[in-house]
Amino acid sequence: MDVMGGFQGFGYGEWMLVEELFDAARLHSLETVFTIGNGYVGTRGGFEEGFPRGWSATLIHGVYDDVPVVYTELANCPDWLPLLVVVDGERFGLDKGEVLSYRRQLDLRCGVLSRYVRWRSPGGKTIDILFERFASLADRQVLCVRCQVTPVGCDAGIEVQGSINGYSENLGFNHWELLNQGKTDKGIWLQVRTRSSRIELGMACEMRVSGAEFSLETSMVPGYPTLSAQFPAVSGQTVTVEKLVTVFTSRHVENPVNEARGKLGELLGWSVILETHEKAWNDVWEKSDIAIEGDIKAQVAVRYNLFQLLIAGSRYDDRVSIPAKTLSGFGYRGHVFWDTEIFILPFFIYTQPAIARNLLTYRYHTLPGARRKALHYGYKGAMYAWESADTGDEVTPRWAMPNDPYAEDIRIWCRDREIHISADIAYGSWYYWQATKDDEWMRDCGAEIILDTAIFWMSRVEWNTQQERYELREVIGADEYHEQVSNNAFTNRMVQWHLQRAIFVYEWLGQEFPEKAAELAQKLQLTPERRTRWQDIVQNIWIPYDASTKLIEQYEGFFQLEDINLTDYEPRTKSMQAILGIAGANQRQVLKQPDVLMLLYLMRQSQEFPYDADTLQKNWDYYAPRTDITYGSSLGPAIHAILASDLGKTAEAYERFMQAAMVDLEDVRGNAADGIHGASAGGIWQAVVFGFGGIQFLGDEPIANPHLPPGWTRLKFKLHWRGKWHEFDLHPFVEDGEDGEEITSTSLSPLSPSS
Amino acid sequence: MDVMGGFQGFGYGEWMLVEELFDAARLHSLETVFTIGNGYVGTRGGFEEGFPRGWSATLIHGVYDDVPVVYTELANCPDWLPLLVVVDGERFGLDKGEVLSYRRQLDLRCGVLSRYVRWRSPGGKTIDILFERFASLADRQVLCVRCQVTPVGCDAGIEVQGSINGYSENLGFNHWELLNQGKTDKGIWLQVRTRSSRIELGMACEMRVSGAEFSLETSMVPGYPTLSAQFPAVSGQTVTVEKLVTVFTSRHVENPVNEARGKLGELLGWSVILETHEKAWNDVWEKSDIAIEGDIKAQVAVRYNLFQLLIAGSRYDDRVSIPAKTLSGFGYRGHVFWDTEIFILPFFIYTQPAIARNLLTYRYHTLPGARRKALHYGYKGAMYAWESADTGDEVTPRWAMPNDPYAEDIRIWCRDREIHISADIAYGSWYYWQATKDDEWMRDCGAEIILDTAIFWMSRVEWNTQQERYELREVIGADEYHEQVSNNAFTNRMVQWHLQRAIFVYEWLGQEFPEKAAELAQKLQLTPERRTRWQDIVQNIWIPYDASTKLIEQYEGFFQLEDINLTDYEPRTKSMQAILGIAGANQRQVLKQPDVLMLLYLMRQSQEFPYDADTLQKNWDYYAPRTDITYGSSLGPAIHAILASDLGKTAEAYERFMQAAMVDLEDVRGNAADGIHGASAGGIWQAVVFGFGGIQFLGDEPIANPHLPPGWTRLKFKLHWRGKWHEFDLHPFVEDGEDGEEITSTSLSPLSPSS
Repeated sequence: MDVMGGFQGFGYGEWMLVEELFDAARLHSLETVFTIGNGYVGTRGGFEEGFPRGWSATLIHGVYDDVPVVYTELANCPDWLPLLVVVDGERFGLDKGEVLSYRRQLDLRCGVLSRYVRWRSPGGKTIDILFERFASLADRQVLCVRCQVTPVGCDAGIEVQGSINGYSENLGFNHWELLNQGKTDKGIWLQVRTRSSRIELGMACEMRVSGAEFSLETSMVPGYPTLSAQFPAVSGQTVTVEKLVTVFTSRHVENPVNEARGKLGELLGWSVILETHEKAWNDVWEKSDIAIEGDIKAQVAVRYNLFQLLIAGSRYDDRVSIPAKTLSGFGYRGHVFWDTEIFILPFFIYTQPAIARNLLTYRYHTLPGARRKALHYGYKGAMYAWESADTGDEVTPRWAMPNDPYAEDIRIWCRDREIHISADIAYGSWYYWQATKDDEWMRDCGAEIILDTAIFWMSRVEWNTQQERYELREVIGADEYHEQVSNNAFTNRMVQWHLQRAIFVYEWLGQEFPEKAAELAQKLQLTPERRTRWQDIVQNIWIPYDASTKLIEQYEGFFQLEDINLTDYEPRTKSMQAILGIAGANQRQVLKQPDVLMLLYLMRQSQEFPYDADTLQKNWDYYAPRTDITYGSSLGPAIHAILASDLGKTAEAYERFMQAAMVDLEDVRGNAADGIHGASAGGIWQAVVFGFGGIQFLGDEPIANPHLPPGWTRLKFKLHWRGKWHEFDLHPFVEDGEDGEEITSTSLSPLSPSS
Repeated sequence: MDVMGGFQGFGYGEWMLVEELFDAARLHSLETVFTIGNGYVGTRGGFEEGFPRGWSATLIHGVYDDVPVVYTELANCPDWLPLLVVVDGERFGLDKGEVLSYRRQLDLRCGVLSRYVRWRSPGGKTIDILFERFASLADRQVLCVRCQVTPVGCDAGIEVQGSINGYSENLGFNHWELLNQGKTDKGIWLQVRTRSSRIELGMACEMRVSGAEFSLETSMVPGYPTLSAQFPAVSGQTVTVEKLVTVFTSRHVENPVNEARGKLGELLGWSVILETHEKAWNDVWEKSDIAIEGDIKAQVAVRYNLFQLLIAGSRYDDRVSIPAKTLSGFGYRGHVFWDTEIFILPFFIYTQPAIARNLLTYRYHTLPGARRKALHYGYKGAMYAWESADTGDEVTPRWAMPNDPYAEDIRIWCRDREIHISADIAYGSWYYWQATKDDEWMRDCGAEIILDTAIFWMSRVEWNTQQERYELREVIGADEYHEQVSNNAFTNRMVQWHLQRAIFVYEWLGQEFPEKAAELAQKLQLTPERRTRWQDIVQNIWIPYDASTKLIEQYEGFFQLEDINLTDYEPRTKSMQAILGIAGANQRQVLKQPDVLMLLYLMRQSQEFPYDADTLQKNWDYYAPRTDITYGSSLGPAIHAILASDLGKTAEAYERFMQAAMVDLEDVRGNAADGIHGASAGGIWQAVVFGFGGIQFLGDEPIANPHLPPGWTRLKFKLHWRGKWHEFDLHPFVEDGEDGEEITSTSLSPLSPSS
């Protein structure tokens, strides 16, 4: 480990994030930051020995259970971490004794989290403890944690207790019923089931001790089976206790606890498991890495964000997606938003297309829920949930409920009105198809998604007889500060775009797979009249755009709202909605996040209306200063970074970029404790590749038109496009020995997908 | 134990309730039924060894903590029961092996719950296990549980694990943070704290083994400290394992865990603790018992209901009251309703006045919350919470929230509209004072309650200029099927009654305690103008009463609602609201519970307007057939029993009486699992004493005018009235050797209060 820089208590290397001093005030946000995982399970960076009021959590894709108000949430699974070290009868903990030395580090190259502590017990014994953990990327069911203890200048009697803690909780709520527990020759096991969704989980674990003579005991407290190793430890000699854990759920196997026990019996040792795990990570980074030279902070921050996406993307299961807070926290309860398709998906489309396919296939499997939602609201086709979980039914809470009995409950309207999600999913599906040419997926899944949501739009638009145009009334656009608006430009244009693609896809299907086209025509009642109606809507839906000024009105009447000068409110540490109140923000020209600019960004990929350089400039000048980019939505900064880069605003682009990149590492918004900002992480990849790299897919191949931030001497990444890998190795343009305007230096080297 | 009768799987004796066969389908309702307690703590009848999906609970008065939607709830405290018996490595449980014999019984005379099981382990060992438990009535901090194990026809290695389980939960939610745990010479201890309210709790426990050589070990799994006794057991020889537990909270002591450890060190053995406990119970029953001869089922049911009230009434603390479901379940989350003052309080006033005083003083201590509520709603004075907890602030949930994401949330209006609670509390205060002549309490607490709520009424009434009368609009009366009504006769008359008493109390205070009167006049701004306004309201508030027909209209417009014939809906197994829907019941002349009849009942005590025999008859004939007495509110049947008895409807009176008496024992309404129906239990006492005993307090002494139900050969009880005990020993009137009209046979024998 070579530390090459530092920020806010962190040191780092190119592949390494290091916490050099434990600060209990940052307990929860650093639990988030040090989340590890393997695309199946995510485990927050809580301590093996626990800590008072810690929010330890292990979340597994798809393991949802009922909970009041928010309907369902990812259940915090039994905790596999507990490894208590007792030194001459005194239990090690960072809240007692004396911490003489401390270092926690996450190796991004292989996802191993380690922590070194030199601790003096209240009784005066000094001991070095090194904890390490990882969730195997090579074998998703295997979780490993170990500690190495070394007495310093003393001998000591040591006990290490390794448990499975069945009392994990989601901020107080325990989703699990204990079914059974027991011991085997090799270890202990626990069998539990979620209360409502009845998902069974089996976890088994064993401990292996080396470096001392030891005795091993088992204790069977209900819900908390424990292995306890006791040994004498001699000054300067290291004893290693490895705890190997297996976990299965009934989402994939019939008898999870049997599988867990069986798998445990087959496990080789720590070093073998680690080796295959590291190899798996090498393969992943080979495709997904972004190398930056000249800006070590940006380098580690980018890799950190990609790491968090890579451990959250479902590698094994196409019935789950990536929650807004990944598998790293309780924020948004594991619900899935447009964050996935619009912000996160491109990274996977272009570097891990198999994962992108899983994410989109989740939307295919949840079509029945989207149809139930449409039916509930009196519409046709499929209306995707603003917040989606296991079934695709709408699980956005209706209320934000303060605990003060006299405070008003606040109605949350997104479930009813933030309808653009259906177009966003179509958008993600379309660009996955464009990038991969995965016709099979489009035939089997994508077409039905795009077509049945198109039917929804047909039932959702209203015909304005006076104005002779289609409209969408009572919506929430991308900007959530305005909760009940009509003819939101973003939504209306996305719907138009969506219906254009639906018409195209249906025609393509009819040509390429006429049987499938006939089947869907039958199933979805895709009559010629309906398709004609789509065309009519495409031609006549209103986009509030003034061709003379090129200014797009965010929604009908937005320009009539009271104007605002955000600089008048600086400096501030909270959102404009918190300052002005919900009604106050609603009544003013202040945006939580890009809306017109978001539309321009989405239309930029194919350079479609209304995207052009001049329109971008005009609308940027209007909307950017009115956007609460610091404390509004975390989805905004990366998008602003890209557009600012397009506009040659290098300094602002970089500032926004770093604001997004550090959102969790520096806890920029004060809510990192709730989990990783997944959309921001996805935006970071887009900002580097599409923004600074200037990648476009206009012809048959991706082309770079880079604008590297000042100081970046090299930017390297790969993209997978239509069956081939394209490697980009970009440098700034150097003129007369000085850094000047950047210039493209693209090497296109097709690689086999397996490279 | 001599079983003298049986019903629905129960056997019983005069003082004994026996479950003779374990039925897992009744698990939760029987956990409620077998609740024990001591006026400080209540513990549901869950098993010492646990049972899958059990709702074990130990609730302590006043230990509330925050929870979403319902604001606050009694936190399920660490479980002191766990006593796991392991027979040759196999853990005893009713869900495994073979149950050869089973009996669970609650001894009402001394509150000892015992359970005998003969069990054959899967491995074929047969063992007798006798569990016993009680919460000491002599020493509220002491809880005792023990098991006696006897191998039958075999020898066995036995392990008994006694734990403190810190993972107790309220239907999934664990309110406790672990602070610390440990072991002492004598046992183990646990220190925890509620998450939000920061109430600290300390629990300590030790185990004593007799009858075998044993070894004792301690295990320290976080949050679940455990003592484990191992011993060889020989066929036919009984080994006894006593687990003695102490519990303290920071509501009463500064360092609860120290107190718990200290107290544990002082404890004598099981038999000594049990002896003082039994003596305490003897003293209680000496005052509070009702003896019935000739109807063993009624006898045990009445004693059972009184037992449940006696263990719920706060004996030590005047800052808590009795929750609607006592300390026996999660229903209504430990919130306190009018159930206490109107239904439960009389039993305590006349048999345990010190407890009655505690219950009412709770309302005095929560006046600040009632004032905050008044302020919030824009009124003056004190407006009591419909649902009250630790602070007296309103904690009625605003919403009933189904988990179906498409079902509508149902607004609960009681917090806003069910305002009669303030008059109900004045009513309870008044009759406590009448019965006890506790002038000191009226001076220090009662007067401020009655006067500041009178100020609230003054600000709440509206003057109808056209009709020249005071009105109360937008209320919910006693009958909750009608959610937004005006001029509810019950509410308006109670307010009139309340203001009359307020005027009286203020005058009395001025005469007896002029300084206190001046102090309150200052504090509450009791100007002469305000008192004149009270008088004006008394004279001019509208009671919808037709003097010619003597019929009281439940509220303005009630008689215009669609009429209903409830017999048309028989047989049914759910409430009329469930059948008709909320709006459907609202629109019809169907009552959830007595409303006009409730008013008549409350005015019966002092024979005030509108109570008289003719008015009762007329209104009974109208309202009783329109009341959903079977599946509406559980508060109804006991009141109907009393009024039916007044009207000579002996059969109906008895039917309603038994319906109330068996509500939990026979789970008449299917919701006994949620906890004891405390108001119904209080109504039972009133039905026996005021209804069948016909007790009235018209002169200086209570007079009986009994109407004993058929078959009752003797009814015996005591009442405390103005410093003296009055004993009643009532018999039916016997004429010519046949049962005929009952006649009074009252012996008035003044007893000292301590007798």
